[in-house]
Amino acid sequence: MAGSKYAYVRNFELPDPLLPGTFMLLRLDGHSFHRFSDEHGFTKPNDLRALELMDHAAKDLMEQYSDIVLAFGESDEFSFLLRKSAALYNRRQSKIVSTLTSLFTSSYVFHWAKYFPDCPLKYPPSFDGRLVLYPSGREIRDYFSWRQTDTHINNLYNTTFWVLVQQGGHNTTDAHATLKGTFSKDKHEILFSHFQINYNALDARFRKGSTLVREELPEKTIANDDGAGTGEPLDSGAPAAAVKMRGRTKPRTQVVVLHCDIIKDDFWDARPEILAD
Amino acid sequence: MAGSKYAYVRNFELPDPLLPGTFMLLRLDGHSFHRFSDEHGFTKPNDLRALELMDHAAKDLMEQYSDIVLAFGESDEFSFLLRKSAALYNRRQSKIVSTLTSLFTSSYVFHWAKYFPDCPLKYPPSFDGRLVLYPSGREIRDYFSWRQTDTHINNLYNTTFWVLVQQGGHNTTDAHATLKGTFSKDKHEILFSHFQINYNALDARFRKGSTLVREELPEKTIANDDGAGTGEPLDSGAPAAAVKMRGRTKPRTQVVVLHCDIIKDDFWDARPEILAD
Amino acid sequence: MAGSKYAYVRNFELPDPLLPGTFMLLRLDGHSFHRFSDEHGFTKPNDLRALELMDHAAKDLMEQYSDIVLAFGESDEFSFLLRKSAALYNRRQSKIVSTLTSLFTSSYVFHWAKYFPDCPLKYPPSFDGRLVLYPSGREIRDYFSWRQTDTHINNLYNTTFWVLVQQGGHNTTDAHATLKGTFSKDKHEILFSHFQINYNALDARFRKGSTLVREELPEKTIANDDGAGTGEPLDSGAPAAAVKMRGRTKPRTQVVVLHCDIIKDDFWDARPEILAD
Amino acid sequence: MAGSKYAYVRNFELPDPLLPGTFMLLRLDGHSFHRFSDEHGFTKPNDLRALELMDHAAKDLMEQYSDIVLAFGESDEFSFLLRKSAALYNRRQSKIVSTLTSLFTSSYVFHWAKYFPDCPLKYPPSFDGRLVLYPSGREIRDYFSWRQTDTHINNLYNTTFWVLVQQGGHNTTDAHATLKGTFSKDKHEILFSHFQINYNALDARFRKGSTLVREELPEKTIANDDGAGTGEPLDSGAPAAAVKMRGRTKPRTQVVVLHCDIIKDDFWDARPEILAD
Repeated sequence: MAGSKYAYVRNFELPDPLLPGTFMLLRLDGHSFHRFSDEHGFTKPNDLRALELMDHAAKDLMEQYSDIVLAFGESDEFSFLLRKSAALYNRRQSKIVSTLTSLFTSSYVFHWAKYFPDCPLKYPPSFDGRLVLYPSGREIRDYFSWRQTDTHINNLYNTTFWVLVQQGGHNTTDAHATLKGTFSKDKHEILFSHFQINYNALDARFRKGSTLVREELPEKTIANDDGAGTGEPLDSGAPAAAVKMRGRTKPRTQVVVLHCDIIKDDFWDARPEILAD
Repeated sequence: MAGSKYAYVRNFELPDPLLPGTFMLLRLDGHSFHRFSDEHGFTKPNDLRALELMDHAAKDLMEQYSDIVLAFGESDEFSFLLRKSAALYNRRQSKIVSTLTSLFTSSYVFHWAKYFPDCPLKYPPSFDGRLVLYPSGREIRDYFSWRQTDTHINNLYNTTFWVLVQQGGHNTTDAHATLKGTFSKDKHEILFSHFQINYNALDARFRKGSTLVREELPEKTIANDDGAGTGEPLDSGAPAAAVKMRGRTKPRTQVVVLHCDIIKDDFWDARPEILAD
Repeated sequence: MAGSKYAYVRNFELPDPLLPGTFMLLRLDGHSFHRFSDEHGFTKPNDLRALELMDHAAKDLMEQYSDIVLAFGESDEFSFLLRKSAALYNRRQSKIVSTLTSLFTSSYVFHWAKYFPDCPLKYPPSFDGRLVLYPSGREIRDYFSWRQTDTHINNLYNTTFWVLVQQGGHNTTDAHATLKGTFSKDKHEILFSHFQINYNALDARFRKGSTLVREELPEKTIANDDGAGTGEPLDSGAPAAAVKMRGRTKPRTQVVVLHCDIIKDDFWDARPEILAD
Repeated sequence: MAGSKYAYVRNFELPDPLLPGTFMLLRLDGHSFHRFSDEHGFTKPNDLRALELMDHAAKDLMEQYSDIVLAFGESDEFSFLLRKSAALYNRRQSKIVSTLTSLFTSSYVFHWAKYFPDCPLKYPPSFDGRLVLYPSGREIRDYFSWRQTDTHINNLYNTTFWVLVQQGGHNTTDAHATLKGTFSKDKHEILFSHFQINYNALDARFRKGSTLVREELPEKTIANDDGAGTGEPLDSGAPAAAVKMRGRTKPRTQVVVLHCDIIKDDFWDARPEILAD
């Protein structure tokens, strides 16, 4: 057959299967999003539209890939947990990383206009993805604690910083200098004493990030489908069938977005299926 | 510091550097593009708009990543060659695969409306990417010969198949049956005898695929920038700066799209820099 | 410095760390041991000297590498379990596999004359090694069950086969034919009815393989060191110091060789430290 | 079948093929050989017996593995070059590294008594092995230049150091202090002025290390086999058949040990087959 004398080049494609029986954790990060957020005029310290767009792309990913059992996002990054027994693409690393990163990006661009109706996208944004294996639930708990702690630290800093700039009349250099070496309680104090802001009363979305889980739809909602549910169901662009019956006897589920604590046990005790086999 | 007790989870992120001194070849493939092309009414056997959109996304990638020295596309796939000495992202595999696949996808969605003004995108498409290392120029030559031979084989089959269906009144089952076991010359004969089509006179884009290379801009064009050049320069959405001065003494280049033979020596003899160190 | 212009070749040495938090299982196999056992006149179906030599080499390895918490051997293969938290050689795969395989081989050749005093080694034997990661204790249990079941199956077959040949007057072709398609109970029956052999009364070493664990030395034995202990302590060629005090408060241990069931829970319930973190 | 319910543990054995079309370079290093050489009273700065034993083990490896086309040794390390097209063990990394390291070690222990007849081996020595891929002949040349330069630097230092201690009455601290910051010419000068030693007249084995290559046996020697040849053929313990006819028309070869310059072109120009495909 024509071409067969060249086909030997396929021998250079080496297998890259991931270890079975381990959790896969995919983390996506915006590429050069400092510039991207400037060019598109993102509100500081948090742009609600941009965060909701991230959530939407993450939800699309979860609806397309049933092996994803949990996702957590903050700022321009999102983490996705795939179940321990996931056999997606035979656990081939490049296939999983590239396809999921691609779909997230695609969804982000596709839904842009819905969240930024008055701000056309100036150029195509991109994300990088990395996949990390974790052998046990303990490490998964700690991974998500690590990310949510990071959300807290960054948001407290950024909130205080931008209040100093936007309401306190500092320039950015002064604001950084003021915050240098301060502890959490100092930042709370600056916000409260000088600006009458109770940090803990700010929107949980900003303080806790976005956690996406699957929740069962109540029986009666199955007939008239969308909108009911618990949590904060997004209006999905995906066809209704994407909310799958994963086998005859399984209850119908939908992906919901939460802004809650995922460091303490409560979240996990209520959802044992996330870390189950 | 808060969060530091969880930071150990970073130890599970293992290094994935690619062997130095080898060519990297990234191949992207559309994910479920059979369905995607049906849903968006792609013309058979080739949809010019879809192919030009692929070329545009590939061009954006080359303009963004100066380590890419050659690209070749057909149908819903594109291959990118990175120079042997490329140090992009310290040659970290996941970073390279995910970021480049992401940007290609993003560009594809971003430019969709320009090529399909009357056909809104129904849902976000995605691509998978894989990266293969090749130690020498010999294998790179053979890789691209493999892809272009594949283009030829597929296009000859598809062209004949769809002529049988669209002009010959066959249903698709009959058309497949008619072509079963035929050789190239038989298909040429069917096209010519029954439908007065000279296959070799069809658009080279369909027969040869798209080859993207960097070409030097003539000195005089540097002042008034775009549009001149050789080949088939696309109107790029990228900022002018993307056509980079890669160092003080290097001539200014632009990415051009060709539809030429890349199996014979001529193409390569004229561009020794592609396989050079 | 002289030589520095060549030192770039070190950049081609890529890191190969193994995933943390997982059990490492190293399995060694004799290379071409069919020929090796023929050339050195190994007794069929089991050569006690050869098995004891394997045990000795395995014991040397455990005494040298405190991260090994369990070993199991049969025929010309040996499996070594490294604790989950082992940081040996920073978990570099090639370093671990090569060094441990090397020491086992070295010990095998070094001690040969002790077990085969009348049969000089004719040529240097070799072993191959492979390292497999397992995320949890469940898989480790199943791994060792897999190996001991294999021991049972092979030994029952080989025992019956060689009885047919050595006592039953079959040639090897006939013996294989006789056993083809038989079940375990058929082989037990052949041994018992025709040769008055109760398989379950044969040496446990042959039926169960060799299991090496660390056992605490009773307090009083610490003064006058060797020889007491439980199990079957080998006369080790290693210096006494190799039986290490692994920290001030830890009890002194020695490696013992057992021939017991490791499929049922009893073995593991009695030694929770093997699978502990 | 018994045992089949455990066989799933084999799924955790992941493939580890090495990139085709690249040179494999295996480097072995003695494990804790500082202590080993002390315990066995190695002569300083070079122990001829120990070096010849290393050469013997390396020669055994080359005779067993025809894919090895070149080897270079100094002190307690040895490097082996496998031809670019080697398909040994399907290029599985662990299999190659472990088996070759094992055989080298085995051979070292096996032949010990021949080189150290009056000094019994006190305990089993071990080696570690690592395998590095190189895409082209240029890097292979530089690799061996790197190792031979290292031999030169170390040997000049050690020679001068031990002359100062053994003939000059320095203690080791003084000798190190004397040499600190000196250049090559300074060491040459110390040797010549103070001890009448012309470094370049010392045994080439110590200055140049050991290089093992395959050389064709002259036609007439085929009948009465051994001993003739060029270079320095070792008395091999391997059966005569190990000097293989690698195909009907290929000339008979033997492995010879050289102590020559391998940095300049001469060595390589005379042996184009080493880097050939």
